[in-house]
Amino acid sequence: MKLLRWGPIGQEKPAIMDAQGIARDLSGLVPDIAGPVLSDTGLEMLRGLDAASLPRIPDGARMGPCVGQTGKVICIGLNYSDHAAETGAPVPLEPITFMKATSALCGPNDPIIVPRGSEKTDWEVELAIIVGTTARYVPESDALSFIAGYAVANDVSERAWQMEHSGQWTKGKSSDNFGQVGPWLVTRDEVPDPQALRLWLSVNDVRMQDGSTSTMVYGAAFLISYLSRFFTLHPGDIIMTGTPPGVGLGMKPPQFLKPGDVVELGITGLGQQRQDVIADDRP
Amino acid sequence: MKLLRWGPIGQEKPAIMDAQGIARDLSGLVPDIAGPVLSDTGLEMLRGLDAASLPRIPDGARMGPCVGQTGKVICIGLNYSDHAAETGAPVPLEPITFMKATSALCGPNDPIIVPRGSEKTDWEVELAIIVGTTARYVPESDALSFIAGYAVANDVSERAWQMEHSGQWTKGKSSDNFGQVGPWLVTRDEVPDPQALRLWLSVNDVRMQDGSTSTMVYGAAFLISYLSRFFTLHPGDIIMTGTPPGVGLGMKPPQFLKPGDVVELGITGLGQQRQDVIADDRP
Repeated sequence: MKLLRWGPIGQEKPAIMDAQGIARDLSGLVPDIAGPVLSDTGLEMLRGLDAASLPRIPDGARMGPCVGQTGKVICIGLNYSDHAAETGAPVPLEPITFMKATSALCGPNDPIIVPRGSEKTDWEVELAIIVGTTARYVPESDALSFIAGYAVANDVSERAWQMEHSGQWTKGKSSDNFGQVGPWLVTRDEVPDPQALRLWLSVNDVRMQDGSTSTMVYGAAFLISYLSRFFTLHPGDIIMTGTPPGVGLGMKPPQFLKPGDVVELGITGLGQQRQDVIADDRP
Repeated sequence: MKLLRWGPIGQEKPAIMDAQGIARDLSGLVPDIAGPVLSDTGLEMLRGLDAASLPRIPDGARMGPCVGQTGKVICIGLNYSDHAAETGAPVPLEPITFMKATSALCGPNDPIIVPRGSEKTDWEVELAIIVGTTARYVPESDALSFIAGYAVANDVSERAWQMEHSGQWTKGKSSDNFGQVGPWLVTRDEVPDPQALRLWLSVNDVRMQDGSTSTMVYGAAFLISYLSRFFTLHPGDIIMTGTPPGVGLGMKPPQFLKPGDVVELGITGLGQQRQDVIADDRP
């Protein structure tokens, strides 16, 4: 089952893909793709619907992030053994954990806004885990059952702000539109092995990243269990699980995004995204 | 003007202190101490009310965090010159910025829950800035006008998880009930100089922290301006501005919290908090 959200920024409505791949509006049935709708019970209810009988969403509608009411975005650093090697960093002994501001989240095809003063805006295709059920002190053996589903994410990063301006990575991970999530949430029953997915990203039609979640150091089940020891995971929380090799910072010489570039990325079975890179001309 | 929130966890209602220091329910007038209510216009409307004519909140009501719908909690590390000296760290060249999960936020007198496996749960009294108006690329000269008000915060921290388990501080800052905020939001007109406030914290009636915001390295106006270069600040966002000397980690030998301890803290003009330290016996 594929769930998505459409409409203007901040006013997104829920939708579901029918068997023909047509997005159908769910707003008469559930308030959002969020909260209790993400639980096993909520998803089971949606699964029982005759999706094809629901109204189509308007042609050309903007897609928002595929999940709403996200309380926290937890990111895992250097979580692909081949990406760690690329950056010259050792594989971490435990998951490197930081947060991206929820205000950075946006739709899968919303532009990447290069913030004023940025010189090192970079890309990162990632597998996003969407938490479905409240999780606290969860054993790894049971951890996957707390996941509602998976989505494609772009963990856009400003490398100078991440690493050159006094410790801690948050500053370089949290600019507006630095977190495209979607196009849809694919429920976990349709992703039998989250550690066997191909991820790719292109800039201006040049393939930059082409990896597999099989080289993740810490997989989805371990991450849910590990993080749930430190804080409670709530429905709608997002875990961005790290990126495979091929980011701009790892190029020789490094290569970063500039207005006019086009970024495309995707994960097998989870859909794809397309973003124009633009300057920040907002007041 | 002092604004607060009361009621069961997750169902808090807004309230205001009247001239006699009696908390009066605002839930018939505004939905929450959040969003547009925090703007200058929203606060001006509340200022015009005859607070004493509103219903009293029930005696003994629990107080929640004094602001709702918080999208992000931005914390500033090593932001007191005397605290930096205490930890042996140099004063940072730019504000060290990290995030605390919003799921850690709780009321001013809610317990400090020592997470399972924690051995180094520590205290940090901090001045919290509550953002009132959307702020992006704000000059320092104008920055204070984007603040709704100030509050006392306890930036509870697990030092082993913050510093000994693979980079980045988030893991040690985000456990449930690691962010008491309140008792109330004091509007900025009643805090003429945020850099002239005394902060204190006691554990079991022993004074541990006794500092002044005058030794902050980066003050409130600078922080609003600085952070607004990296991401948009939204109404209800909280900035925890760092802690003065006297945390447990800085003691010789270090001293940490254990179930049965009582923590009290406050800031001149902003009220005080009291927390029982308890073990985590939740499922």
